[in-house]
Amino acid sequence: MSDGPALAIGIDVGGTKTAVVVTDETDRVLYERTVPTNADAWTDQIVGLVRETVAALESRADEVLGVGLAVPGHVDSRQGTVRMAVNVVRDEVALAAVCQAATGLPTVIEHDARAAAFWLYRRDRTPNVAYLTVGTGIAAGLVLDGVLLRGATGLAGEVGHVLADPDGPICPCGMRGCLEAVAAGPAIARAARERWATDPSATVLSADASAADVFDAARRGDAVATAVVEMAARHLARAIRGLVLAFGVDRVVIGGGVAAAGDTLLAPIRRELHDERKASGLAETALAGTSIEILPPGTNAGARGAAALAREAAVTAPAAAR
Amino acid sequence: MSDGPALAIGIDVGGTKTAVVVTDETDRVLYERTVPTNADAWTDQIVGLVRETVAALESRADEVLGVGLAVPGHVDSRQGTVRMAVNVVRDEVALAAVCQAATGLPTVIEHDARAAAFWLYRRDRTPNVAYLTVGTGIAAGLVLDGVLLRGATGLAGEVGHVLADPDGPICPCGMRGCLEAVAAGPAIARAARERWATDPSATVLSADASAADVFDAARRGDAVATAVVEMAARHLARAIRGLVLAFGVDRVVIGGGVAAAGDTLLAPIRRELHDERKASGLAETALAGTSIEILPPGTNAGARGAAALAREAAVTAPAAAR
Repeated sequence: MSDGPALAIGIDVGGTKTAVVVTDETDRVLYERTVPTNADAWTDQIVGLVRETVAALESRADEVLGVGLAVPGHVDSRQGTVRMAVNVVRDEVALAAVCQAATGLPTVIEHDARAAAFWLYRRDRTPNVAYLTVGTGIAAGLVLDGVLLRGATGLAGEVGHVLADPDGPICPCGMRGCLEAVAAGPAIARAARERWATDPSATVLSADASAADVFDAARRGDAVATAVVEMAARHLARAIRGLVLAFGVDRVVIGGGVAAAGDTLLAPIRRELHDERKASGLAETALAGTSIEILPPGTNAGARGAAALAREAAVTAPAAAR
Repeated sequence: MSDGPALAIGIDVGGTKTAVVVTDETDRVLYERTVPTNADAWTDQIVGLVRETVAALESRADEVLGVGLAVPGHVDSRQGTVRMAVNVVRDEVALAAVCQAATGLPTVIEHDARAAAFWLYRRDRTPNVAYLTVGTGIAAGLVLDGVLLRGATGLAGEVGHVLADPDGPICPCGMRGCLEAVAAGPAIARAARERWATDPSATVLSADASAADVFDAARRGDAVATAVVEMAARHLARAIRGLVLAFGVDRVVIGGGVAAAGDTLLAPIRRELHDERKASGLAETALAGTSIEILPPGTNAGARGAAALAREAAVTAPAAAR
């Protein structure tokens, strides 16, 4: 394929915004665009974005091999379907087939966290990597020995609903004390508001504080905000220890809206893991060689991973099938 | 290889006993033996068992392709080494090379839970399976899409040290509230003894109750023992939910000493999972098609898996290397 067309379109459909990239076979970004997600006309918006992107490529439009869609929810990449994508769809949608029929371009679909993990693996050649997305929800994408993990159920990586605290609040999923219920953006905001309600004078935060407000206040030294951040960081550190011990990965990259906090989140996570390594020889063995990173803000890892998966599908598919 | 020799010796070295099997290419057991583990002369004992097993095969001794060793601890199957095997070794031992040099037979080594998971996968053709061993410690072996998971660190499957209860006791590993610290055999025994100390008249259990005693008493209706079993079952059920959600497996098999309790353990685990499925659509989706089983007592899954791995290594290795 080295002398053939090798551009791929990747689209990461989030709850609030949708990112589009076009990359070439060296993963160079030729085109990048972000628009608000139109949750009422999801598939129409995707099809429109593909057409506009192809048009924007002008003379290179013929070089587009295919489209990759990174979406939240329960994704079956083999069937090309998605369901239970919070805020967007609940019934099963044959998204890959719909997009392919409307655009004429081969289309693949993948869970957004898995697409991001695949991109990190390919870009940096790290064959055992977990991408942990922390935003409105929490999920992981996992590449193990160079293979993207999807699972028998298509649900592999749903670590947001692994137990974090048996005494924690009820999760939106219905179970008690899920990681998502104690460490995702809404959980951070709720914990801050609860502390504000107890003693409003103790903090600069207000009754409608967001997770971003909490990190801002923590950065400026607010004690209440700092305590909330440390609570979330403790839960995330334990989840990272779990990813490393259970999956045997040696690289964990944190992304999603909450990761925009950068070092304000990463520093307390690292402190927690440092304490566990001091306490336990096993934790030291597992974590000593493990890289814990935050995805640089503005990196469209999901969209770039989706493009990489589209390129891989085009290259490995029999020519007759295209 | 179908018309060549195809016998393999599998040895599962446990903390208290060591099981030896010989299986043929159809996984039929031709020879089976269990002896007490000699922790002071571990490698000598293994070498002696291999020699005695070959001798016992008499005219078929020439058909032995190789040896597989299933061991606890931190196993590097690529290097053929093991360390941190509780009760047995702490320094790194090049066990595969030592055994191979002494017996002249190609030897592979694998973590005992991984060997058992591999055997379950091969026997039943279930490509996404977790084997959860619950005994003195807790660990998992995982086969994902037909591939045995080892991890970058060789520690994949160390789910005994994933957090189960932030307020739980300190684990022997040094961290607080690990799954092993609340649901392994010693944790079950300790919880029973603590309840006995509070009110000895409330239970048939005594100050030196073992985990097996606790299950026996629960089976006979003792309320204190039943409460302890339900506590352990709750933690194990949450861990199983975590395995299913994080890894996407659709089959979980529980083995190890504690699994000898059979339905006395399995029934409360299933009740817990049933409650979670009623509470959460996500849990229902993930768990509805998931099989939760207990390994039948007396099944030498680790030894049979080690034999299967030895056979696979012999078949895939270049002939010149043997």
